[in-house]
Formats: sequence, C-alpha cells, structure tokens
Amino acid sequence: MIIQLEPSIAEPQKTSVVDAVKKIGYKPKHVATQYGDYVVCIGKKDFDIRTIGSLAGVRDVHYVSDEYQLVSSKWKVGKTAIDLGDGVKLGDGHFQIMAGPCSIESEEQVRKTVQHLQSCGVRVMRGGVFKPRSSPYAFRGMGIEGLKMFSAICRESGIKVITEVMEPAQIQPMYDYIDVYQVGARNSQNFNLLDELGRVDKPVMIKRGISGTIEELLYSAEYVFAGGNERLLLCERGIRTYEKASRNTFDINAVPILKEKTHLPVIVDPSHAIGIREYVEPVALAGVMAGADGIIIEIHEKPEEAASDGAQTLNFEESERLFRKIREVVALQERW
Amino acid sequence: MIIQLEPSIAEPQKTSVVDAVKKIGYKPKHVATQYGDYVVCIGKKDFDIRTIGSLAGVRDVHYVSDEYQLVSSKWKVGKTAIDLGDGVKLGDGHFQIMAGPCSIESEEQVRKTVQHLQSCGVRVMRGGVFKPRSSPYAFRGMGIEGLKMFSAICRESGIKVITEVMEPAQIQPMYDYIDVYQVGARNSQNFNLLDELGRVDKPVMIKRGISGTIEELLYSAEYVFAGGNERLLLCERGIRTYEKASRNTFDINAVPILKEKTHLPVIVDPSHAIGIREYVEPVALAGVMAGADGIIIEIHEKPEEAASDGAQTLNFEESERLFRKIREVVALQERW
Amino acid sequence: MIIQLEPSIAEPQKTSVVDAVKKIGYKPKHVATQYGDYVVCIGKKDFDIRTIGSLAGVRDVHYVSDEYQLVSSKWKVGKTAIDLGDGVKLGDGHFQIMAGPCSIESEEQVRKTVQHLQSCGVRVMRGGVFKPRSSPYAFRGMGIEGLKMFSAICRESGIKVITEVMEPAQIQPMYDYIDVYQVGARNSQNFNLLDELGRVDKPVMIKRGISGTIEELLYSAEYVFAGGNERLLLCERGIRTYEKASRNTFDINAVPILKEKTHLPVIVDPSHAIGIREYVEPVALAGVMAGADGIIIEIHEKPEEAASDGAQTLNFEESERLFRKIREVVALQERW
Amino acid sequence: MIIQLEPSIAEPQKTSVVDAVKKIGYKPKHVATQYGDYVVCIGKKDFDIRTIGSLAGVRDVHYVSDEYQLVSSKWKVGKTAIDLGDGVKLGDGHFQIMAGPCSIESEEQVRKTVQHLQSCGVRVMRGGVFKPRSSPYAFRGMGIEGLKMFSAICRESGIKVITEVMEPAQIQPMYDYIDVYQVGARNSQNFNLLDELGRVDKPVMIKRGISGTIEELLYSAEYVFAGGNERLLLCERGIRTYEKASRNTFDINAVPILKEKTHLPVIVDPSHAIGIREYVEPVALAGVMAGADGIIIEIHEKPEEAASDGAQTLNFEESERLFRKIREVVALQERW
Repeated sequence: MIIQLEPSIAEPQKTSVVDAVKKIGYKPKHVATQYGDYVVCIGKKDFDIRTIGSLAGVRDVHYVSDEYQLVSSKWKVGKTAIDLGDGVKLGDGHFQIMAGPCSIESEEQVRKTVQHLQSCGVRVMRGGVFKPRSSPYAFRGMGIEGLKMFSAICRESGIKVITEVMEPAQIQPMYDYIDVYQVGARNSQNFNLLDELGRVDKPVMIKRGISGTIEELLYSAEYVFAGGNERLLLCERGIRTYEKASRNTFDINAVPILKEKTHLPVIVDPSHAIGIREYVEPVALAGVMAGADGIIIEIHEKPEEAASDGAQTLNFEESERLFRKIREVVALQERW
Repeated sequence: MIIQLEPSIAEPQKTSVVDAVKKIGYKPKHVATQYGDYVVCIGKKDFDIRTIGSLAGVRDVHYVSDEYQLVSSKWKVGKTAIDLGDGVKLGDGHFQIMAGPCSIESEEQVRKTVQHLQSCGVRVMRGGVFKPRSSPYAFRGMGIEGLKMFSAICRESGIKVITEVMEPAQIQPMYDYIDVYQVGARNSQNFNLLDELGRVDKPVMIKRGISGTIEELLYSAEYVFAGGNERLLLCERGIRTYEKASRNTFDINAVPILKEKTHLPVIVDPSHAIGIREYVEPVALAGVMAGADGIIIEIHEKPEEAASDGAQTLNFEESERLFRKIREVVALQERW
Repeated sequence: MIIQLEPSIAEPQKTSVVDAVKKIGYKPKHVATQYGDYVVCIGKKDFDIRTIGSLAGVRDVHYVSDEYQLVSSKWKVGKTAIDLGDGVKLGDGHFQIMAGPCSIESEEQVRKTVQHLQSCGVRVMRGGVFKPRSSPYAFRGMGIEGLKMFSAICRESGIKVITEVMEPAQIQPMYDYIDVYQVGARNSQNFNLLDELGRVDKPVMIKRGISGTIEELLYSAEYVFAGGNERLLLCERGIRTYEKASRNTFDINAVPILKEKTHLPVIVDPSHAIGIREYVEPVALAGVMAGADGIIIEIHEKPEEAASDGAQTLNFEESERLFRKIREVVALQERW
Repeated sequence: MIIQLEPSIAEPQKTSVVDAVKKIGYKPKHVATQYGDYVVCIGKKDFDIRTIGSLAGVRDVHYVSDEYQLVSSKWKVGKTAIDLGDGVKLGDGHFQIMAGPCSIESEEQVRKTVQHLQSCGVRVMRGGVFKPRSSPYAFRGMGIEGLKMFSAICRESGIKVITEVMEPAQIQPMYDYIDVYQVGARNSQNFNLLDELGRVDKPVMIKRGISGTIEELLYSAEYVFAGGNERLLLCERGIRTYEKASRNTFDINAVPILKEKTHLPVIVDPSHAIGIREYVEPVALAGVMAGADGIIIEIHEKPEEAASDGAQTLNFEESERLFRKIREVVALQERW
C-alpha cells in the first residue's frame, strides 16, 4: 500500500499517518523524493481504506498487490517521463536514441562521435570511463578525468551524457559531469550503490543483472525510489543462457512485461543483447518494435580499433542507417 | 564439402565421384532429394578442388566450413522458398502467416477458424491432432480422424494445413491430409523421426528444442535434408531459461543468426515464445521485424474455452489486428 | 487419487468402481500393470473416501496431491526394488553399478569389458547399439546385430544388459536381448516411445531430459507406469546450463529430491554429468553419497580409441579404483 | 607469466625486471602481497625465459597459460592453506566446518550458537550483519553494532568469525571484529569491492555469482590477489538455472574443477545450494565427498523463527548429526 502525502503536510500530520498505519498492523516506511512524499506500507491487512484516506495531509491511498510498490504501475496514473533538460525527454511517448563508444578513449574520439550524433539528431551520448572488467589486467577506463573531457565536449553541443557509476564513492565526483548515472549489469543488485543513488537528484538507468529476473530489476529500481530518487530508467541488455551463438540472449519478452508492470521507461541495449555487430540492426529494430521507450547502442568511428566491445559496435555509417530505420519504426507505431 | 551432381549423371559416373572422394580421404554420403543429387563429404583434407570439379557428371563443388552442410548458406546461392501450392510460398521474400488453435476440437471450431482466416487473407492453418503433453492424463488430441475433418474443411477453402507429427508410424497416415509436417520442440532431436521425414516429399517445419541450441536445430534439419527431403522450415519458439515471468524466453537473436547461417526459411512462434496472451502482439511484431520469413500464431474464437494453451491464444479480433500490423511491418521492410 | 484393486476383482466390479468415480466427478483411467490393477482418478473433489473404499474389489484408496500419481511416494509404502533376475536387484537398499562403453564396437571389446566387470563384481553392462547423434554423419551404432552379439557374451557370464531404445519399432526386436531399456535424454519426452514401453514387461530406465525438470522426469515415468509397466528407474545425468567448464551441470540436488518424491530407484550418470574423465571419480562418489540407488559409468579398455564419448570414459584401472571406493561409500552409508 | 621476486630485491632491480618485461612485449603489473612480490606479465610472446630468470632479484619465472594467473595452480607448487590463527587452518588437507545463522539477531542467539559449535568442535561461526536483500523493505541486518557483539562473544570462546562485507566503506570498520570477509554472490563481480579487499590483510571468501562461471570466480579472486591479498577462499553456493524444485542448482562439478584449476581452498555452501532444509544433509555430504576443503552451513536454534533463510537452516540436533557424518566422510577420504 502506498500513501501519497500532500506537499503541504505538516510534520505532526505525517506522524499521525505513520502511527495510524502501524496501528493497523503495517510496517510503514516514509519516502521523500524530489517530487513527492510517500508512506510505503509493508504487510497485508484487512481494514477500511477510508480510515487512512480521510487523515489530514493524505492526498491518495493506493493498494498495490506487487511486493515492489513505488515502481509498480498499479498505483500511478500514466507513464513516467524522465526529463534530461533542453527538451530531451524519455518515456511516456518520448523515444530517445542513446549512442556512443563502449569506452571513452580520447578527445578526438569524443569530438567525432558528438559530431556524428549531432548530424543524426541524436541527443544522448553513452561512453564508459569506469569499466567493469572480468580480468583485473584489462583496460579499466579513463576515469574521472576522462569524464570531465567527455562531458565538456558534449555540453558544448547540447548532448546529454550517460555513463556507468561503479561504487558509492564515485557518485559525488561524477555529479556535475553527467546527465544519467548508469548502473551496470554486474552491479544490478549492488544494494549499497542503489541506496546511495537514491540520495541524489539525477536520473539513474539500471541494467538488468547478468541473469537477473524481471522482478529483481523492479526491486532494484524500488531501492533507488525508496531512497528518494524517482528519476529511473530500466534497461534490458540480454541475459545469460546456455546458447553460445550470441554473447547474451536478448529477452525481448521483458519489454512488454516491464511496460505493463512499471510506469518507468524501458530501454533496450541491442549491442550487449546479441553482441555481434552484423546482427545489432535487426535486434535493435525488434526491441523498438516490442515497445521500448529508448535504445542505447555502441558505436565507434572504427569499431576494429575500439578499446573494448569492438565486436558488437557499429560504425558511423551503419549507425546512421539504423537510426533512420528506428525512427521509421517509431513513426509506424505512432500511427497505430 | 558438397558435390552437386548433374541430373543426367549416370550410375558409373556417380561411383567414380564417390571413389575419388574416398581416395582423397573424405567420407562420402550420397544424398538424393526431390530436387537434386549431392555427395556430402565429411572430413578435412587439403587437395586441388579441380580434381573433383572436373569429373564427369559433377555440376559444382562447394567448400562448407560448418559441420552441418546441406542446410548451410555457405554453398547455396540465394534463399530457399518452400512452395505449398496454389500460390502459397514461404521464404526468399514470401512472408506467410500461419494461424489456428493449439488443438483441433470440433468441426465447428475448424469452420469458424477457416472463415476467419479467409476473411483476413491468411492461407495456412495450424491445429494439433496429436498433442505432446507432459502428463499422460491430459487431452492428447483428436487423432487421425480429427485430422481428416480438419483437412477436408481447409481443402474446401484453399487453406493449407500444418500439424504436428509425433512418431514415424504417423507419417504415412497423415500424408494425404497435410501440407506441412511440424516437428515439435520435444521431438526436435528425435532422430528416427527426422530420418523418416527425410524419406517423404512434403515440407517439414522443425521447431527448436526446449533448450536446443541454434546449431542443434540446423543439425536436425540436416538429418531431414540428408535423408532426401529439402523442403524445410525452421522455427524459433522460445527457449527454457531461469526467467519465470514468461513461459519461455523468446530468443529473438536466433532469427538473424539463422537467417545468415542457413538458406532455409525461418519462422517465429510468438505464442509459445512468451506464452501470455496480452504480450503476443508486441513480440510477434518484434519477431517479424527481426527478419522472420513467416509466423505461426495460436488463435481461437474463445481462448478461455480452448482445450489447450488458452492462456497464450488470441481471439479473432486480436488476431485480425495483429495480422494487419504484421503486414504493415513487412511492407516497411520491403521499402528498406 | 489412486484406487488399488484386488487381483481377484471381477469385471462388473471394476465397472462399478469406475462408475462410482465418474459419479463423484473424477476422470478415471484404468491401469493394469504386471503387478497390479489401479484406477487413477484425475480431478479434485470433496467426498467421503469410504464410499469408494468400501466397494467390492477395492483393496485400498490413496489420496495423492501430486499431479503425477503412480510414481509418487505419497501412496506406496516403502521403496520399489527392480529385480533383473539372478540376484541382481536395484533400489530399496540394493545398490548396483552399471558400467560399459558408450558404444558397442566389437566382440573383442565386449569380451574384455565383460571380463573386467566380472573381475570387479559388477553385474550390469551398458553399451549403445543405437546412438542418438546431433550430426547425421556421425557413427550411429552397430544396430540390432551388435546387440545380439553384445547380449550373447553377457548372457554367458551372467551379466545383465542395459542399452538405449530410440523408437517404438525397436522395442520388440530388442526384447530378447536386453534386461533394461534405456530412454535417452533426447527422448525423455518422446511420449509415443514412453507409451509403447508401457506395454512391455521389462525394466525401463528413463534419463532426465537435456534440460528437463525433475517434475517432467516424474511425468515421463508416469507415462510408462500408466501404460502398464511399473518396472522403472530414473536417471540424473546432468542438465544444460550456461556453464561451459563441464559438458553438463550435474544437478545433484535432484537425487534427494527424487528420492523423496518417488518410490522408484534413482540412478546417477557421472560420465555425462560432468563429461570430463579426470573428474568422473569425485562426482560419481558425490552422487552415491547424495543417496543414489545405483550408478551408470562409461568405461573402455582404451578410452582414447573409443568410437564415442572417449573424453568422459574411464579406463579399466580407473574404474576398478572407483568401483572399490563406491562400495566403501555405500558401506559407510549402511552404517549410518 | 608470473615472475616471483626475491624478498631481498632492491628497487632498481625491480625496475630492471619490469623494463625487461616491457622490452619483450609483455604488459607488466607489479603485485606486492603480504607474502610475496610478483610481476604479472600480460601478453603472449616468444622469448628465451632465461633472459628474465637470470636477472638479479628474480626467484622464479612461471609460464601460466590461463588468463587468470596468480590464482592458477599452474605456477604454485602445492595447495594454499589459509591460517585463521589458534590452529584453525583451511585448505591443503585442513578441513573446516563453518556454521551459524543467516542473520545475527541477538546476543542470546549468538551465545547459544557458540555454545553449540563448541560442543561440536566447530571453530568458525558465520552470521550476517549486513544482509543483501532483493527488497529494500526486508530486514537488512544488525549492522556494525551487531558485529561487535557477535565478535566479542566468539572471541571469548576461541571461535573465528566470517561475515559478509557489502561495500568498500565497510572494510575498515569491520576489520577488528572479523577473521574472514565474505563476498556474497551478488557482489562476486563488484570489482571496486574486490580491489579494496586486495588492500587489507585478512582472508577473503568469495562466493560464486548467482550465475557466475567458474572462470569468473577465478578472475574475481585474481582481483583480490593482484590487489595485494593472497589469503583467499572460493565458495560454490549453487547457480541459477531453470529448475525450480530447489532454490539453486548445486554445481558440484565446480568442486573438482576448481580444485584442479587453482591452489586456493574450495568451500561448499549446501544451504544456499539446495535451499531446502531436509535436503541439506545429503548435498552437504556430497559436496565434501566431491573434494571440498571446507563447508559453510546455516544453522539456528529454531529455524522456524529465524529472521532470514529459515527454510534452509538446520537446527542444532540436525547440524550435530551432519557434523559427525562430515567428519566420517573426511576420515574415509584420508584413508584413500
């Protein structure tokens, strides 16, 4: 059960609400985000909902049968749009393409990519500066200095920045240079990181775990929301299965399922979902067709020379064609 | 290595070819299908390909690096189209919708479905009469008498019939009443059944195993082709994974991968791939967008009353809308 | 619900029982096996069990909450032992080792293996003559003639024969030459084969499917039992997962779970479960320690030269040591 | 390639070694742990190994073909034993039982558990104070104050403490109160946490990821070792598969495989590996039989009342019987 409070609610009234909830037998948790005040109530009790609904300072009471609550579509009228500023919105009818290299490598690389994105009308650039790598000896990214450079060039051109955050200690240093924090698949259940991302007012895109369930992804988002940050995106990036013909198995079923279960925008990452350059286009288009609100794609001027993930990275020409087709698919869906 | 023989080749010439192959150190297998004569050569040897190519009666010699050979796209120029007659073609640019109930239940059911398909311009009807069921106590289909009824009604209306065959002994009795034999997921590696289907001249659609690999599906097709029947369709129907939010995980990656690895048409089955009625439409459209040559969908006048698979079955209204959207997706792809 | 009938029950009494069951609202299925007469009742109804229990010719009525019934441990007092004759029993406290090559290759191979087994006190020999192979071009076994040779040599020495059956048409020709039919992992849900094996009075060992669930394995056994044959063994042989460091993932959890859910003997196959020769010993011993009633192991005089599965096959020396250790583990368990 | 340096090596000599390595074309990484100085060399080059081996200050040069190096058994003679002090050793022939509740709940609970462990001769107690939970609303542990209490009681009785660390910021505050840091399955690839654990001189037990590969587990250990801490334990705790009859699938194959690939001790966690109390005993014994160097088991005085994981927790009586049997299995193995 979620109790939405009025913005004007006074402290003693909050206390009354929380006390009333406890009395009924629920365990209340007060959640204050950048947009609202909620009391999430854990438990299952029979009671007259009006006893809560009529309390001073209560705007609305919602019954939510899912165990995750704030991210559930069961209480929120309509879908959530995430506004990155300068007219760049994501979700609730606003489709966005995000593209860029796996790793930020050099100023020249960033400049050329930004130029390419601008010429294609793409408004969000991805690029890793902290890279999670299976081996401790692999290239682990340019770090915070790389991010500052990456960010500065994007800011000049009105391009928004999404990049991965790997630990709580990185959150503050990154804050000024990014527009979306990305939580990678290996950190999808790093609960301490999720807790901390709840305390910051910037959008967070959470990738599904390597073999995370759809429900676990929703719970991970619930962590951030319950921590105080409701600007959330969810990303399907393929799961680990026995099939070795592709890097991961793109669970395209997750797109319509997530779209029904949550009000949050759903992004697809075809690059990781299949992991093979020549097949990125068809599965990217399939992901959009399945109903995604946005897409994040790895591109590089010279994929063969990329510092990481070159085998699944499109070059500029391939990506331009894909962007165009994606827009035609979105346009077809809008006509339906 | 595949050696294509001339249709006019005489028996002694065949023997010469086979002998030459053995001499080089390959293990030859002669394959005669409804369309051609081949010698499939197993092994890996260094030799001058002209020594074979110049033999009398040899049309062409193809080097195939895959271990499956006849179904590989590495030797065949162009894609294969399967002709079901009366202008119903599948593959190589001919997209087909196949639809119908999970189980054939009654004459009335078949008549109404045929009527609906005709009104929608759909030319192929699916419907099971032999049903593989986990439990021996579940409904196992109407059997051969059901098939005769099903077939007769379809024939009246120019609708083609696809239905599942479960064991070698059913092949001949079914022959006159069907247009495509379907091999179900649980029989995808029933090699005796595949062997026998190689001896019959009717198209065969092989479903990927419950957790079969893409490579195993190609090998299963190789069984039928090597048995003498090259009229083959492959079907992605979802695989078994840890994710329980859907019945199966639709491995949409398999569509472009199969399309590149084989010349055979690739079909998607969104009904089993997700297993939840309200999500069949988006994943069906995604499957088409990923490049499928055809689609097979479970529909029923009253899904709630279906003898089996009701939870993943569309009603007539839902299916009509889906058919229309599928055609718009195919039309969009043709413009690209 | 299972109704056990008296051996002496007359036909009209059987009809009365079936009618009574229908009247209550259950769907009855009469099952006659080599050992008993049962009416399996499908459904869930509230009624006074004495109305059935008191009917003439009814020995006992058992309520079974599982959907599989005859194989469930919920109705049968005690465990089932399978008697192969000549004092070779399996289950209910009788542990058996079964060993032999993947494929029967030659008379000499069989003779040497039989000699080795005899010297080690092993009473059951495995060996395939019909081999399911992913590729149609691989060695597919010596066939029925190979079986006759294999069987004759074993019979001379009092060794029992277990070998794989792949299709219904093989059941009768094999009957005189085997002691246990093995259903392979790829045929674990070949329901037509299971149906037919229900009509024969010889033990059947069913392997779990490539990625079959424990429940599906029980249902497959239910097919054979409901067909009339209750001499059944179940075999855990590893499942398909994402992990590629071993051929399969040995689901050792399945051993205690199966032992609790069914009264049938449970066999482990460590050779396929890990697929790597040097690790067969530890996982074999682990499987026995987990509670298996028997074990089936691939051995060969010269594993390097085996026609199939050499990489997971023990030589005679290795197998002798393993047999000895297995017996020590069984002895330890008997002391507990 | 790993170059072991002499303890007495001078800085200029280290520089010479690193320079020599670079010159050959390898990428060197200097690693200094509590026990040794190494230069790990990444790459693959042909060269005369004596050119390095003869440099001043080089003790030994090892060629390691695995991509993980320091944890590989390919360079280290013999197995690694982890000494927790007071005669509590783990690995290289020293078997240890670790047991305790999922969550530390109260002083009374800890006292009773310690008493029980002492009476059973168990020297290491587990117990979580920081609990990773899918839902943000679930009990998340008693935190650092709980750890202080837990630790104080254990120290009184000579019991060693193992508990989970969830983020870098917890490492220092926990240091004085624990004997082994546990990295949980969800943090198995939390590389920042692993990096930091490399900087501390306390043993670390890394659990395999929810669906981590054996190779990924070795790489995660390589992170800690390469960070400077070679006191490492690896733990198999079951993997996520499609099978839902148990909480996880116990990949018992991992035990012999890890034992061969690494010199580090291998622990099994049967409680999570099967997740069902009545089956913990057989799979625990199987894990020991497969070759584990230690075992970690969830126990509680009243499992029904445990704050978490009660369904997979043994009571004192059950655990006492299991401990006894484990020791009999270990004794049997020592006789072999």
